[in-house]
Amino acid sequence: VRVAPDQVERVGVVGAGVIGGAWAAHFLRMGLDVSLYEPSSVAREGALELLDAAWPTLERLGLREGASRERLRFPETLEETVADAQVVQEATPERLESKQEVFRLLDAAAPADVLLLSSTSGLRMTDIQARCAHPERTVVGHPFNPPYLLPLVEIVGGERTDPAAVDWAVAFYAAYGKEPVKLDVEIPSFIASRLQEALAREMLHMVAEGEATVEQIDAAVVNGPGLRWAILGPGLSFHLAGGQGGMAHCLDWWGPLLDEPWSRLAAPELTPELRQRLIDGCEREAAGRSVDELAAERDACLVALLEARDRCRDAR
Amino acid sequence: VRVAPDQVERVGVVGAGVIGGAWAAHFLRMGLDVSLYEPSSVAREGALELLDAAWPTLERLGLREGASRERLRFPETLEETVADAQVVQEATPERLESKQEVFRLLDAAAPADVLLLSSTSGLRMTDIQARCAHPERTVVGHPFNPPYLLPLVEIVGGERTDPAAVDWAVAFYAAYGKEPVKLDVEIPSFIASRLQEALAREMLHMVAEGEATVEQIDAAVVNGPGLRWAILGPGLSFHLAGGQGGMAHCLDWWGPLLDEPWSRLAAPELTPELRQRLIDGCEREAAGRSVDELAAERDACLVALLEARDRCRDAR
Repeated sequence: VRVAPDQVERVGVVGAGVIGGAWAAHFLRMGLDVSLYEPSSVAREGALELLDAAWPTLERLGLREGASRERLRFPETLEETVADAQVVQEATPERLESKQEVFRLLDAAAPADVLLLSSTSGLRMTDIQARCAHPERTVVGHPFNPPYLLPLVEIVGGERTDPAAVDWAVAFYAAYGKEPVKLDVEIPSFIASRLQEALAREMLHMVAEGEATVEQIDAAVVNGPGLRWAILGPGLSFHLAGGQGGMAHCLDWWGPLLDEPWSRLAAPELTPELRQRLIDGCEREAAGRSVDELAAERDACLVALLEARDRCRDAR
Repeated sequence: VRVAPDQVERVGVVGAGVIGGAWAAHFLRMGLDVSLYEPSSVAREGALELLDAAWPTLERLGLREGASRERLRFPETLEETVADAQVVQEATPERLESKQEVFRLLDAAAPADVLLLSSTSGLRMTDIQARCAHPERTVVGHPFNPPYLLPLVEIVGGERTDPAAVDWAVAFYAAYGKEPVKLDVEIPSFIASRLQEALAREMLHMVAEGEATVEQIDAAVVNGPGLRWAILGPGLSFHLAGGQGGMAHCLDWWGPLLDEPWSRLAAPELTPELRQRLIDGCEREAAGRSVDELAAERDACLVALLEARDRCRDAR
């Protein structure tokens, strides 16, 4: 019978690259036992170096009770790694064939009630789980780099995943210091990386056409929309840009401009249904807070971020 | 003869909407006299309310010597507004015809050595300056909302703008609390809004296709890439994602994936020249700092941002 998602004590991590090593650091911070499987001694050394570098930072952010670097071990085999793990986080190279094989082995070795979570940044769990006898407990748990600091984990199952397993994964990450976002649909590259990719591709076009340099682009982002994106996503940003009228007013103004060449990405038609979905989403997020209240929260948070950023830069 | 860009004492602001009112608040914070021209009494009231709301925040961020709300006045006419202003910041509605007319009037009223800066978010100065007798002193100075907090100002001249005027604008904004980014090329919507627009359009597609909701998208951004974008733009983000190999290694990995459907925005061809521009840009930004050093700076800053954000949320 599966352990409660907030009662986990032992985690298996498979792969000790940048992502696997960071997962290990995060789970250690959360007070868990971590079994980290990695056949390469070079990669194992790298994971220890990452842990050395990250640990003071994690101490500053706060360790959970019982958290200790001493609770990390490197088992010799995959079987030993998953033998007593209550959940397994996979973080091996991003190739479908090899992920399928890793999951086939994990599936054969781990008790059927243990969740197998993949850090894949773009593959579909439907494909990764293809060779598993118990695909119902396989779920994507995609972190963001650096995973010991950024809270986001995107969670989605494959066609043969049990919805209860997806919910367990959401509760597990939430209980252990993460901000899970559960997707309803399997889409290539999930949510955050798709948005990041759209922005990055526009950057490529600008640099390719000689319209802007990397430095100009980076300076524009960190001093403008980037600061806002740390506290407001693109949805609520537009909601606030609409003034008292919120997203509805913003769309009335923005809609006719979607054909302007303000990005190489063509916009979809702003149908009444799409319009309503955007407005409803912002209303749900605002949860009763007026635009003025949201703007006041944004400003207070922006001031705190600006002060924090200034202190960091001064400390250099 | 033009005043030195760091010796300005009197600013004219034209238009008291959300942007003009915010410019007035910022310049007051910087210790300047502000003449704010706005024919609508409702808008003038709105600007005073904005100033009431923003002032405690600006006090917390720090006022320059001599800064005072008492240094704001509302002249009756445009002529009076610019009569003794040493620089003029325009912030009127975003319609080419009306901007051209405002600039014609400002150009006729202001001494020929006074810079006329436009807050336009997407129009070209080449078009705005069409009816000016002295177009050489007209420059775009595009802020980001809220302009009394976000440091970015994008600066670009039109075809008939004197390059020396563009440089004066850069020095003026830098001297008075802003982070100017000077563009070499006039492009629709400049840099930051183009990137923002690419990201927003991908959001529209995702919502339209039922792939994700506004709430999922916003949560993914603020807990993932958004936190990073407050300190690292998309260029340096990829540089760090490349590990010790930096941007070059990242492009070797990313290049073959640019045809993947990871965004509706098609990517340009990653030519050797584009590749080199991206690498060179990151090297210039890194300014000798190794990837490890940059990652350590990123982590320290992320921790500070996370702590600041937590304090803000707790204070709600």
